Amino acid sequence: MFEPRNPHYAEHTLAAFKRQNFSDLIGLQVDQISPGKVILSLPFDARLTQQHGFLHAGVTTTGMDNACGFAAFSLMPENWGVLTVEFKTTLMAPAAGERFTYVAEVIKPGRTLSYVEAKAYACQDEETKLIASMSATMMCISQRPDIKG
Amino acid sequence: MFEPRNPHYAEHTLAAFKRQNFSDLIGLQVDQISPGKVILSLPFDARLTQQHGFLHAGVTTTGMDNACGFAAFSLMPENWGVLTVEFKTTLMAPAAGERFTYVAEVIKPGRTLSYVEAKAYACQDEETKLIASMSATMMCISQRPDIKG
Amino acid sequence: MFEPRNPHYAEHTLAAFKRQNFSDLIGLQVDQISPGKVILSLPFDARLTQQHGFLHAGVTTTGMDNACGFAAFSLMPENWGVLTVEFKTTLMAPAAGERFTYVAEVIKPGRTLSYVEAKAYACQDEETKLIASMSATMMCISQRPDIKG
Amino acid sequence: MFEPRNPHYAEHTLAAFKRQNFSDLIGLQVDQISPGKVILSLPFDARLTQQHGFLHAGVTTTGMDNACGFAAFSLMPENWGVLTVEFKTTLMAPAAGERFTYVAEVIKPGRTLSYVEAKAYACQDEETKLIASMSATMMCISQRPDIKG
Repeated sequence: MFEPRNPHYAEHTLAAFKRQNFSDLIGLQVDQISPGKVILSLPFDARLTQQHGFLHAGVTTTGMDNACGFAAFSLMPENWGVLTVEFKTTLMAPAAGERFTYVAEVIKPGRTLSYVEAKAYACQDEETKLIASMSATMMCISQRPDIKG
Repeated sequence: MFEPRNPHYAEHTLAAFKRQNFSDLIGLQVDQISPGKVILSLPFDARLTQQHGFLHAGVTTTGMDNACGFAAFSLMPENWGVLTVEFKTTLMAPAAGERFTYVAEVIKPGRTLSYVEAKAYACQDEETKLIASMSATMMCISQRPDIKG
Repeated sequence: MFEPRNPHYAEHTLAAFKRQNFSDLIGLQVDQISPGKVILSLPFDARLTQQHGFLHAGVTTTGMDNACGFAAFSLMPENWGVLTVEFKTTLMAPAAGERFTYVAEVIKPGRTLSYVEAKAYACQDEETKLIASMSATMMCISQRPDIKG
Repeated sequence: MFEPRNPHYAEHTLAAFKRQNFSDLIGLQVDQISPGKVILSLPFDARLTQQHGFLHAGVTTTGMDNACGFAAFSLMPENWGVLTVEFKTTLMAPAAGERFTYVAEVIKPGRTLSYVEAKAYACQDEETKLIASMSATMMCISQRPDIKG
C-alpha cells in the first residue's frame, strides 16, 4: 500500500525494536513488518497483571504504542528516528487470554507527523477478541544524534 | 477537597495497588494517597528503556494510568472496583532522569464515570521537569466478583 | 452487522437529529442510518470557515461527533438517550472541498458505554480525501426526562 | 509566564480570530489574550443547541479549540501560522447556562509542536460550573502562504 523510502526498512525496524529493553522485559515479539503496518504479540505472563488478574493497561498500551511507532518508522527515510507525540488508548474488554496481538497501520504518513491506528486482540482457544484501540501521532526526527531508530 | 465515601480508602487503595504484579515488576511505589489525589514514583531502571535509552512511553503511561485509577478509586464506595475506560497520553519531553513521579487528581468524580488528569515528571539532581500528561476516564464497577479494588 | 434493539431505530435517530438546531444552522444532512453506522454530510459554506478559509475544526468535529452519537443511538433500546463522554479528533489535512462526509461506525456497543470511530472526508471534483478521524466514547442514558433521543 | 517572540502578538492573535467566519457565526468573543493564555466566551444562543436543548458538543469544542490554537499562536514568531494537529474533548456536564467561557493555557510550547490544555465553564446566575476539558497538540507552520495567522 505504501512505498517505503528506506530500502532496509524491515531490518532497521527490527533492529530498533531489539534495542528496547522494556519490550524484552515484557516478552513482546515481532510478528510482521510491512511498509506502514506492524504486528507485535505477547504471551500471557503473570508478572504483567493488574489487581484483577488481567494484563495491565500499561502493557496493552506498550504493545500498541510500539506497533504504531514502528509502523510509522517503516515509512521514514534511512537514519531518521521516531518519537511518540501522543496517543489515546480505549480499553473495550479485560485483557484476558493466552496471547495478545497488536496490529498497527499508518493511516496518514507525513513528512513531520504520521497518524497511526492500532487494535489489540486477546487470543484464547482459537478465539480472538478485540480488547483495545489506539489513535496515535508519531513524529519523524532527523539529525538528532540521541534519536536514531 | 473531596469527601471520601469509603472510610478505609487509603488502606484499600494501597491494598489494590499491592495486588498489581506489573507495578511490582517495574518498581512503581506509592508516595501519597489522599481523597481524589494519588502520587506514585519510580526509580530509573535500565530494563524499562526504549531504543533511545529513555524510559518507555508504556512505563510513563503505566505510572499515570495507575495514579489516575487509584485517585478515582479513593473516592468510590467500599467494595467497588475501578476500570480504565480510556486515556490520552501526551509526551512532552524524553523520560530521562534518576526518578519519575506521577501525580493524578480527580477533576470530576461521578457515580459511574470519573474524569481524572495526571502529569509525569522526571527528576535529576534536584531538578524536576514535566515530561508527560494524561487525561483519563475511569469507571466505577460494583457487584462484579471479578472486579474488586 | 449489529442487531438493533429498537425496531424504530431509523426514524427515532432521524427525529433526534432533526431536533438539533446546531446541525440545522451549519447545514448538516443525514445520508445513511443503519444499525451501528451513520453517514452525515455537509456542503461547503463560507460562514463555517476558520482564518485560512478552510472549514473550522469545530465543524469537522460536529459532523463526526453527531455521526458517532447517532451510530451509538441506533443500537440503543427505545426511549433511551445518548450523551458524548469524550472524543479525540485528529486533523490530517485542511478541510477544503465542495462537500464533506462524516462516516461513523460502532466498534464495541455496550450496555452503558459504546466505543465508536469516525472518519471525515472532503470531496472535490469526484475526488474524496480523508481529512480527519475521531475516536469516541458514548454513554447510554435511561430514565432521565431531560435526556431523550 | 511565557515571553512572546512576536511583539505584536496580541493584535495579530485578535486579527487572526476576526478572520474566522465560524466564530462570528456562533457569537464567540475574545475576553483575554496573554502570552500563552487565551480566554474566549459565548452567550447562550438557541441556534447552537443539540437535541436535549444544551449547547452542542461541537460548539464547546470550537470554543476550546480556538482558545488553545490562539494561546499557542500568541507564543509563535511573527508571520507564522498555527494548525490544530489533534485534541481530546471530555464533556463532564451538560452545557447549560447563560454564558460559556473557554480558558486555554500553553503547558509546553515548542518550536514545531505546542501542548495546550483548556477548560470550558458554564455561567448562570453568578455561578460557574466546569463542563468540559481539552488536551490539544498545535503545530507551528512557517513559510506556507496559505497558512498565516
